[in-house]
Amino acid sequence: MASLPKDTLHFPAEHRLFLEPHLPLKDLPHVRNSSFPFTTVTFATSLDSQLALSPGAPTQLSGPRSKAMTHYLRSRYDAILIGVGTAAADNPSLNCRIEGVGGYGGQGLEGQPRPIIIDPAARWDFTANHKIFQLARNGQGRAPYIITGLANPPADKKAILDDAGGKFITVEMATTGVSDHKVDWKVVLKALSVEGLRSVMIEGGGSVINSLLQPENFSVINSVVVTIAPTWLGTGGVVVSPPRRFNDEGKPMAAVRLDHVEWHPFGEDVVLCGKLKI
Amino acid sequence: MASLPKDTLHFPAEHRLFLEPHLPLKDLPHVRNSSFPFTTVTFATSLDSQLALSPGAPTQLSGPRSKAMTHYLRSRYDAILIGVGTAAADNPSLNCRIEGVGGYGGQGLEGQPRPIIIDPAARWDFTANHKIFQLARNGQGRAPYIITGLANPPADKKAILDDAGGKFITVEMATTGVSDHKVDWKVVLKALSVEGLRSVMIEGGGSVINSLLQPENFSVINSVVVTIAPTWLGTGGVVVSPPRRFNDEGKPMAAVRLDHVEWHPFGEDVVLCGKLKI
Repeated sequence: MASLPKDTLHFPAEHRLFLEPHLPLKDLPHVRNSSFPFTTVTFATSLDSQLALSPGAPTQLSGPRSKAMTHYLRSRYDAILIGVGTAAADNPSLNCRIEGVGGYGGQGLEGQPRPIIIDPAARWDFTANHKIFQLARNGQGRAPYIITGLANPPADKKAILDDAGGKFITVEMATTGVSDHKVDWKVVLKALSVEGLRSVMIEGGGSVINSLLQPENFSVINSVVVTIAPTWLGTGGVVVSPPRRFNDEGKPMAAVRLDHVEWHPFGEDVVLCGKLKI
Repeated sequence: MASLPKDTLHFPAEHRLFLEPHLPLKDLPHVRNSSFPFTTVTFATSLDSQLALSPGAPTQLSGPRSKAMTHYLRSRYDAILIGVGTAAADNPSLNCRIEGVGGYGGQGLEGQPRPIIIDPAARWDFTANHKIFQLARNGQGRAPYIITGLANPPADKKAILDDAGGKFITVEMATTGVSDHKVDWKVVLKALSVEGLRSVMIEGGGSVINSLLQPENFSVINSVVVTIAPTWLGTGGVVVSPPRRFNDEGKPMAAVRLDHVEWHPFGEDVVLCGKLKI
């Protein structure tokens, strides 16, 4: 047996149990084009609800156990989704490094999720040397699908994606200003279903999460998994806080409530699993 | 035996255990004037680190168990402290309603903490009909001590306090603008020691907590107890997030880290106990 890559991660079976009710079924039936994938929103924040010290600043928040958990979660989804801001800032790998998936002891690309990047104006400036394409060439991850509002994305980027086995997917997006787009999440999620992706884990960044956690999307979000680290980052970082809501009398109300809540202490961090209260 | 007031709260013994390492000793020796009281910062937030939908908006965040916990905590401290913003907005009771303390089945005022209000310019506009004074008259709480920067606080307010058994305490405070003061927490905490108060639980609001959670105060904060409710309030509320810090190279760094961390799932909420990492 070939030796495992040295960055292979392990996530013990005893920690998997509490997550199970919040994950897609292992034998999820193939979706019909008209349905939505099983959608989970997951991210790690500080106590002051920040993903990072600033956009693109690598911020070590959660501990090693939480990192392994994220990779385990990735093995359970057909797709993982981020916004272009995170892709541009982080040069992310967006693969799964849990022992047993393809490229980490497993067969082919089994257990490797499809990276999805929401990039309305196709502004992500990647080359074939970006990590995500290197990993695809090494058989340690899949090439990305980029969801864009452009009918004709740039040919040079298209060529890099084609070579790697990825592609642009064009969907209808409203322009709300100069190079500013409003993403219709139901349209995006249906586009993933059309590609045969039965489940998606939405990982960030801040603007993706804040735009998702709004009432019109509650019905298509199946679960949330939030890791909280015992740190206050301090003012000025990338904050998760959805837009304010108002009740029928115009009074402010909580933006999102969870139910079926479970808290799981996990090393120094805590993991919160729940469903949105509709 | 007289019947208990109907708003008496109960906090079962089995839930008290996890808090114990984070509380002052039950037989804390009397402090000398030069020392600081045992100081705990405690509050309840949403997932987006908010205390309330807006300043003064009554915001039901944590569940009934967490409320009973707060009152149990109050029974363990000589004093509880809030800022004038919270006092002015909430007309708070600031007493302890746990079964067995004075006024709730117990003797005299035993277990009733001394309310401390930080009010640099003595702007809290109270009358003898405010809840806190009613409770003091009923033997269900103590009258407040108001920490001010004014050498001669208003005589009418002083009279109300005197009648109830409270007082103004004048401490040195720097004025940083029109009616804006910088509170020196070490000076405030020492002033409490001078009054024989051996322990203090600091409850809020946002500006008190954000000003406390800064490096110059880390050495005098003995523990933190934060309750988190599974709700995002949404942008625009009262946020706990201390000022940003920078390292020696001028790069942003986490403002506050905790160690000796314990997470305790508690109904729908989670309770985080820890100490500040200095």
